[in-house]
Amino acid sequence: MRDIAVFSGSAHPELAQEVCAHLGVPLSPTRVSRFANDCLEVQLQANCRERDVFLIQPLVRPVQEHLVELLLMCDAARGASAGRITVVMPHYSYARSDKKDAPRISLGGRLVADLLVAAGASRVLAMTLHAPQVHGFFSVPVDHLHALRELAAHFRQYDLTRTTVVSPDLGNAKEAAAFARLIGAQVAAGAKQRFADDRVSISSVIGDVADRDVIVLDDEIAKGSTVIELLQKLRELGPRSIRVACTHGLFAAGALKRLSEQPDVLEIVCTNTVPVPLDEHTDKLRILSIGPALAEAVRRIHNGESVSALFEDSRSA
Amino acid sequence: MRDIAVFSGSAHPELAQEVCAHLGVPLSPTRVSRFANDCLEVQLQANCRERDVFLIQPLVRPVQEHLVELLLMCDAARGASAGRITVVMPHYSYARSDKKDAPRISLGGRLVADLLVAAGASRVLAMTLHAPQVHGFFSVPVDHLHALRELAAHFRQYDLTRTTVVSPDLGNAKEAAAFARLIGAQVAAGAKQRFADDRVSISSVIGDVADRDVIVLDDEIAKGSTVIELLQKLRELGPRSIRVACTHGLFAAGALKRLSEQPDVLEIVCTNTVPVPLDEHTDKLRILSIGPALAEAVRRIHNGESVSALFEDSRSA
Amino acid sequence: MRDIAVFSGSAHPELAQEVCAHLGVPLSPTRVSRFANDCLEVQLQANCRERDVFLIQPLVRPVQEHLVELLLMCDAARGASAGRITVVMPHYSYARSDKKDAPRISLGGRLVADLLVAAGASRVLAMTLHAPQVHGFFSVPVDHLHALRELAAHFRQYDLTRTTVVSPDLGNAKEAAAFARLIGAQVAAGAKQRFADDRVSISSVIGDVADRDVIVLDDEIAKGSTVIELLQKLRELGPRSIRVACTHGLFAAGALKRLSEQPDVLEIVCTNTVPVPLDEHTDKLRILSIGPALAEAVRRIHNGESVSALFEDSRSA
Amino acid sequence: MRDIAVFSGSAHPELAQEVCAHLGVPLSPTRVSRFANDCLEVQLQANCRERDVFLIQPLVRPVQEHLVELLLMCDAARGASAGRITVVMPHYSYARSDKKDAPRISLGGRLVADLLVAAGASRVLAMTLHAPQVHGFFSVPVDHLHALRELAAHFRQYDLTRTTVVSPDLGNAKEAAAFARLIGAQVAAGAKQRFADDRVSISSVIGDVADRDVIVLDDEIAKGSTVIELLQKLRELGPRSIRVACTHGLFAAGALKRLSEQPDVLEIVCTNTVPVPLDEHTDKLRILSIGPALAEAVRRIHNGESVSALFEDSRSA
Amino acid sequence: MRDIAVFSGSAHPELAQEVCAHLGVPLSPTRVSRFANDCLEVQLQANCRERDVFLIQPLVRPVQEHLVELLLMCDAARGASAGRITVVMPHYSYARSDKKDAPRISLGGRLVADLLVAAGASRVLAMTLHAPQVHGFFSVPVDHLHALRELAAHFRQYDLTRTTVVSPDLGNAKEAAAFARLIGAQVAAGAKQRFADDRVSISSVIGDVADRDVIVLDDEIAKGSTVIELLQKLRELGPRSIRVACTHGLFAAGALKRLSEQPDVLEIVCTNTVPVPLDEHTDKLRILSIGPALAEAVRRIHNGESVSALFEDSRSA
Amino acid sequence: MRDIAVFSGSAHPELAQEVCAHLGVPLSPTRVSRFANDCLEVQLQANCRERDVFLIQPLVRPVQEHLVELLLMCDAARGASAGRITVVMPHYSYARSDKKDAPRISLGGRLVADLLVAAGASRVLAMTLHAPQVHGFFSVPVDHLHALRELAAHFRQYDLTRTTVVSPDLGNAKEAAAFARLIGAQVAAGAKQRFADDRVSISSVIGDVADRDVIVLDDEIAKGSTVIELLQKLRELGPRSIRVACTHGLFAAGALKRLSEQPDVLEIVCTNTVPVPLDEHTDKLRILSIGPALAEAVRRIHNGESVSALFEDSRSA
Repeated sequence: MRDIAVFSGSAHPELAQEVCAHLGVPLSPTRVSRFANDCLEVQLQANCRERDVFLIQPLVRPVQEHLVELLLMCDAARGASAGRITVVMPHYSYARSDKKDAPRISLGGRLVADLLVAAGASRVLAMTLHAPQVHGFFSVPVDHLHALRELAAHFRQYDLTRTTVVSPDLGNAKEAAAFARLIGAQVAAGAKQRFADDRVSISSVIGDVADRDVIVLDDEIAKGSTVIELLQKLRELGPRSIRVACTHGLFAAGALKRLSEQPDVLEIVCTNTVPVPLDEHTDKLRILSIGPALAEAVRRIHNGESVSALFEDSRSA
Repeated sequence: MRDIAVFSGSAHPELAQEVCAHLGVPLSPTRVSRFANDCLEVQLQANCRERDVFLIQPLVRPVQEHLVELLLMCDAARGASAGRITVVMPHYSYARSDKKDAPRISLGGRLVADLLVAAGASRVLAMTLHAPQVHGFFSVPVDHLHALRELAAHFRQYDLTRTTVVSPDLGNAKEAAAFARLIGAQVAAGAKQRFADDRVSISSVIGDVADRDVIVLDDEIAKGSTVIELLQKLRELGPRSIRVACTHGLFAAGALKRLSEQPDVLEIVCTNTVPVPLDEHTDKLRILSIGPALAEAVRRIHNGESVSALFEDSRSA
Repeated sequence: MRDIAVFSGSAHPELAQEVCAHLGVPLSPTRVSRFANDCLEVQLQANCRERDVFLIQPLVRPVQEHLVELLLMCDAARGASAGRITVVMPHYSYARSDKKDAPRISLGGRLVADLLVAAGASRVLAMTLHAPQVHGFFSVPVDHLHALRELAAHFRQYDLTRTTVVSPDLGNAKEAAAFARLIGAQVAAGAKQRFADDRVSISSVIGDVADRDVIVLDDEIAKGSTVIELLQKLRELGPRSIRVACTHGLFAAGALKRLSEQPDVLEIVCTNTVPVPLDEHTDKLRILSIGPALAEAVRRIHNGESVSALFEDSRSA
Repeated sequence: MRDIAVFSGSAHPELAQEVCAHLGVPLSPTRVSRFANDCLEVQLQANCRERDVFLIQPLVRPVQEHLVELLLMCDAARGASAGRITVVMPHYSYARSDKKDAPRISLGGRLVADLLVAAGASRVLAMTLHAPQVHGFFSVPVDHLHALRELAAHFRQYDLTRTTVVSPDLGNAKEAAAFARLIGAQVAAGAKQRFADDRVSISSVIGDVADRDVIVLDDEIAKGSTVIELLQKLRELGPRSIRVACTHGLFAAGALKRLSEQPDVLEIVCTNTVPVPLDEHTDKLRILSIGPALAEAVRRIHNGESVSALFEDSRSA
Repeated sequence: MRDIAVFSGSAHPELAQEVCAHLGVPLSPTRVSRFANDCLEVQLQANCRERDVFLIQPLVRPVQEHLVELLLMCDAARGASAGRITVVMPHYSYARSDKKDAPRISLGGRLVADLLVAAGASRVLAMTLHAPQVHGFFSVPVDHLHALRELAAHFRQYDLTRTTVVSPDLGNAKEAAAFARLIGAQVAAGAKQRFADDRVSISSVIGDVADRDVIVLDDEIAKGSTVIELLQKLRELGPRSIRVACTHGLFAAGALKRLSEQPDVLEIVCTNTVPVPLDEHTDKLRILSIGPALAEAVRRIHNGESVSALFEDSRSA
Repeated sequence: MRDIAVFSGSAHPELAQEVCAHLGVPLSPTRVSRFANDCLEVQLQANCRERDVFLIQPLVRPVQEHLVELLLMCDAARGASAGRITVVMPHYSYARSDKKDAPRISLGGRLVADLLVAAGASRVLAMTLHAPQVHGFFSVPVDHLHALRELAAHFRQYDLTRTTVVSPDLGNAKEAAAFARLIGAQVAAGAKQRFADDRVSISSVIGDVADRDVIVLDDEIAKGSTVIELLQKLRELGPRSIRVACTHGLFAAGALKRLSEQPDVLEIVCTNTVPVPLDEHTDKLRILSIGPALAEAVRRIHNGESVSALFEDSRSA
């Protein structure tokens, strides 16, 4: 079998290190230079010829820098005759640009998929895409993991008999419904209303939350405003407890601090697909590692073993 | 401007005729031959050179026949030097194959999009795609219409003050929510539960339907089993009235008869994106025409006018 | 070497089984689902990752169903990270659409070749293409087998000293001429005439058939009308015996029965590239198996051995 | 409409001049430079921006020079922002490389088609391709003319009541059969035999030629050995007269002289798709001009009119 | 002719405004949104259908932001059915990544060219590419302007009889030599030496500069260190006067201030391909406008007129 | 590992033999046929299936013949299912067509790169490309060797303490500067002047050559006129000795003889990337072999080892 070579961009080297540690292979060094004219140049500093190359880079802030860096990494690997190039994107932020809800707007989720292929990516390993359809934006094979297993393992430490999983958005409740089924809980969702002044806000929570242990679940939390708004509605309905969970903890604009300051939020749970700066951590934050899952997926991709088998028990979710 | 030439496959010539009538252009004849070996051959029987060619074909039963016929039409138009080829697909049935929810399955929604482009399609005009993300499956420009305006116009003849729009599926409630906002109604949704034996069924309706005028809305109704199941749950909750609506009335396997036989269903509303055989029509069936909307979109595409402008008022939905 | 994985579509599972038996590998299961909206979904039910995948499917009646199924199989294999995808098409019916003999017609032979590549096919194994030029319609490598060796082995049981191979069509006599050379026979051909009313029919047989043992040879027999017409002309010329042979026995519209009822036709020989329903078999029918030849070709393709070497003795034909 | 711009490579400027004269447009100058390292550079010396560019170049001796020159012309036109690039190839010599009759050989007919597209060709205008299937080698639209109408007009000056059109090769007799039908003549063909020492030669003529006026017809005559061999066989059968005709008069290696020296050959007829050097002309040579047909086809392509209509009467042939 | 629509990204709206003013067409508004997850979304706020769309964006600091924005603009224009998309890149910074001078490095100049095409660009209008070969990195037509005419017009106000144009780098002296010929001056160049410790520095100036009026010319000035180093060498050789000129005035890291502080530098001349912040302007800075040249090129591209004709007099340079 | 298979076109079989001898693998035979119509057909006469195929062909005179032959070789290898196709082009003559210095000219360097890929090339091994940017014309990986190491080894036999490397062209002096640094010499360059009558000639040599040992270095010498012109200028400046060196010794139009007749030229050094006919050799000619370097590069490419490592010491040049 071709040798494996794993490189990390500058977005999340800690996660790349963790994946490599689990794989038992070294993380090969990448040199990223910035020229005086602000252009980037990437050098992959280990032989790529005929190697099975993995490039680890979540598209996190600053997204454009990390995206172009990743494209240059693909290009460098291709030019260096890599046997196969797998882009490992634990967080694909552009997946949220997945539909044309206004005229003449860009469709970033599809465009970036095409750019990665144009730059030489042979395949993609992604995690909890904003919508499962985003899989179909790629013209190369995609392995799509999710973190429901990790989240479920965490929440199973609690008594879940009176639990309701609440999706902030009625239209995106599929993930919440799947998670609820996985942990044997009920499901509810916030319903949005459009006001005369074109504002949209959560008008009600449909489903049963009174006197229940609520887990608010979203795929990602960025500014957190939707969750905060949902919390206000939830409180009117008298839940017994509130926890907040997501796969991608982006926590932009002080979101983590603001959420942590909500007195009735017992816990904020996310995974490490996205790096959270140490000095922003709060007491309520729990970061679950998806490093082992990524490493196992990389190992199976490299060995030609089934990746879907890895998620057998939760795939039914 | 290049001349327009409109052709219809054999899937829905009535709709093509209606579109042409609204456009004031003739429907050019298409000859479809079937050889002794069961292969099809298409001849477009009007000059296509440098013309702005529109090929109208919803992907309805028998889907594979109509799909291959459409691909051959694209090929014939391309080979005949068409200036531009717009595939008008009022119903894109393969859009439902939009995600990989099992290992090693085909992703028909993306594949068929690629096949159309491989066969020569320059652009697509579609209607109420199963998920808005399917737009991104196409590498050519897509104009994506929906029929909410037509449906709203129909229901506005009733008193809508106590109306709730109900989506059969919590995870797909976005369209229902948009329609509810458009007609000033509330929204509710069926929530599904997975049983030990892996059956999934609607376990509850979340949202308020007691003593309300219910409009069950889905993008398409095929076998209708989900709607029937939802009706059973709804009845337990005491709605004041029930109407059923969808864009694509596929009505497979006697669905229309079965739905019409539900005594408390007052009306079944669909559009003519899909032909409903005359001998299957029932008293409760109302078919709204999207012919004028398609014709106007074709006219604007041909003239290079904004298509989004056409849906200004409902786009906000 | 990468492992092999062989799948069959629903067109001819018996042949796939036979090929696998000769190869000594299991036929991996394929699940084909048909949704209520008549769309197909394919699941390949064995690991494809980095495997050398072979998909066996002749494009036989119902052709459009089998074609789309095959395209979905390719897509599923590609999405499942197959190392290489070889489409084994023992009968490529669309090969007959190989030229533009009328304005604005589709060129199905080329289009379907492009669709297969668009769906992910890496290479093709075909048998007795209608014209050898069809090979050039594919942008991927094609191994093109023929069944002349199997047919010759069959006819060598007879005394061939006074044999003439007759092609029904003067313009397509190359295959017949090659076969005649292979078995040391003479060659003749039907010549067609165009009448004032635009009918075309066989006006004469050019070449010597009087008092000779005639083998009528065509690449495929579908409705059989050309052969029947040729038989009428032949009888006027007093042949000593008549046998009919082809590679692809499509036998549409009762052709097999009608041919078998010709009293002076001693034998109708075809191969099993196309399944002939058991209840249509007649006493005069002889079906030669090309399973061993296909299996050997698959084995060689998988092992990187020369396929042309396999046909060394008949290639000169 | 976009303006037209016609350029000629160095293969056959006289034909290009003739086409332009019929079109009433000037032939724009092309500069072809050869560098000291033997590389070519092409400059199109008239504005191509958004123009409807036609590049006239038959692929005649020296073929490789003319092919690369043509590819460079396409590249120059594309780089100069041509609106559309139509390659006018009155003789596509590589069309003869249309099948794989030996292992590991190049398939020049398809390759050159792909090269032209890679170099920027938007469409092709070809004449009497060696096999009609070659049309399908191109991924861009092809208009395929033939010269049967010109040839028929010439021969209609003679009494054709006892005429037989003879194809040198049984396997390629389609064109001869079509021409025979067009002029109301009979058809015959040479049949080839393979000897023990692997030589192939014409063993017999099948069809009636005794005491008839024979027109030997092939698509092209290069070395002429097959025709000479056929003539020997024909003489044994006592024809009343012999004429030789083809579309592409390549006449390599003294073929024209050798054919003209056959005392019983009354006439050698070809068209000017290929330039015949003036000093090789013989008394028996008749060159028919396809300039008017090419010009009319170019005019129709430019104006978006049907080209097939142009050949209505002979297309049925 | 299709209507023109001009949009500007956020890199240099002043230049876009100036181009539009010269063209006499409005600059259509572009909305660039940044989501909470740092992803960008572009909306082109004027109808693009069948329009001749021009997108103006030099790739200046922050380069990655402006590059991704430009790619999204292309995607939006393509999705909105633009008739043609011309990317106007007055400064293509990635052009400097034009060769592989170390193993496994990215080749940004080619990659970004491919990305632009993948995103939908139909053609490119560029200015003073770092090397003329970069033109060949694009698979779409490129119009390549330069600013030598503007620079020459500026310097012709001075007495040029004793002028030497000096290129900082011997290996890149072509542009300087062309400019010298254009203004009738001599040429000289800095020669670099590699020291034992792998440092490279200018070791000497080859060519005559003593007692001459020196114009130091480079295509771009970023950090300016090479120019400063060159100035030190020049001073040893006693020039009569020193001026500094370039097309792209990037002036990174205080370069403009540092250069302006060189007492013997009389003038620093650049063009407005790149915006220079007002508060960084110095007394010695002269910014020449290439707006009229860009506008004229856009006008000619739109009208299908020759762009090369525009630069007739300087092209010979 | 896949087996290696090396083929040579007809351009330089001696070099191919030498490479194979160093590799210890046989040179597999290639059959090139020329048909009567002047078309070429290539047969690769050894199994290519899944093999690692190397095709050796410098693009030397007759360039067009050798180019088309090479394209046909690629096509044959692809059609024969080669695992990978590496084109070994020791001399890429079309690289000199690397920029658009006149309107509407072809860009042969990029076009031929695209043609090779269109014909099936997976990668390229090139030597001393005219400009390093030509690397970026290829969309497949390129290994770019140079012969500076071989040239340096040759010249190190002399005392180099007073040596100046002179580039004939100031604008292309990079290679000369690199070579000068490699052997510890100084650098100089010819500067060109444009006269009123548009002639360009070397007007001066900038840099120090008086009383020095001069090595005139260019990448290729074709007609040699620039070198001869430079020699005339050099002589006016009194060099101590003159040697001439290049990588590609094309020596067109008697260049070798003319250079050898210059009495003060002590030596003309080139490599064997291009075959020099034996009867043109002169006493002053020294041909260095790059066979070992090519063989080592092929070996490393085949084994997936770093090729850049091979040139570690000179890469810094």
